[in-house]
Amino acid sequence: MDPLERLIKALGRLPGIGRRSAERMALKLVRDGGGMIRELAAALGEVERQVCCCSKCGNVTARQQDPCRICTDPRRDTHVLCVVEDPGDIVLIEKAGSFQGRYHALMGRLSPMKGEGPENIRVAQLLERIKAEGITEVVLAMNSDVEGDSTASYLHDLLK
Amino acid sequence: MDPLERLIKALGRLPGIGRRSAERMALKLVRDGGGMIRELAAALGEVERQVCCCSKCGNVTARQQDPCRICTDPRRDTHVLCVVEDPGDIVLIEKAGSFQGRYHALMGRLSPMKGEGPENIRVAQLLERIKAEGITEVVLAMNSDVEGDSTASYLHDLLK
Repeated sequence: MDPLERLIKALGRLPGIGRRSAERMALKLVRDGGGMIRELAAALGEVERQVCCCSKCGNVTARQQDPCRICTDPRRDTHVLCVVEDPGDIVLIEKAGSFQGRYHALMGRLSPMKGEGPENIRVAQLLERIKAEGITEVVLAMNSDVEGDSTASYLHDLLK
Repeated sequence: MDPLERLIKALGRLPGIGRRSAERMALKLVRDGGGMIRELAAALGEVERQVCCCSKCGNVTARQQDPCRICTDPRRDTHVLCVVEDPGDIVLIEKAGSFQGRYHALMGRLSPMKGEGPENIRVAQLLERIKAEGITEVVLAMNSDVEGDSTASYLHDLLK
């Protein structure tokens, strides 16, 4: 494949980036003549080596710290679990600073339109954690749109 | 700097990408767990090694083919020069297929608001080419917005 086409394809796989945006980004990187490309490639390499998702809750964490800081924090309420769609949601709720339990990121949501069923998100791991960790309260913090709502009501029925 | 923060900053430098989009892109890359990161990094490396901007017109070209295919095409009218803002504009005009001259990409446009003057775009190279290549006709193909229009009228006055 043509190198530029390969880069446009790779950029186009990022969320919210269509073909036209990917083309503009690729051209900008070529035009820049190296500095931006090298910095982006270096940042990607560093993230790949040093950052991962917490094996327990799915939060972004240093590879050296897995489970993450929140999962291992002894001051956290271990009986309350907040279920979110993405690691990004954990960051947002933490910024608000009022939730004292732990998290579980599903890494997606149910979407029959896109063929995403319960087996495509971390539902089995959620059930396992609820049993193993003696969770007594589950907070469902899905996004408030059609897919988020149906994911929440699916989990609500499942956990009843 | 935190590796994730470094990646967010690098992505945020791409055109049209704000802080929030960069965060979402970075989280998606971490979540994906390696495949997307490696493919994007490999594509960036390949583009850096193999692709550049034509030293004459600014068009995207293989490093092995500089000046580019259009600049070296003997069937092109060497006396007509189409001035555009970005290499991407050359691609668009070529797709239309009706222009038979050559190109000159300014790599930007005048923007007093952003502090971009004639010295920040390839105006000096344009004047040089017009003299050296015996150009008799210059087509100004700027974008039709305020900055594009003022760049075109600046060049129009300059070339009179």
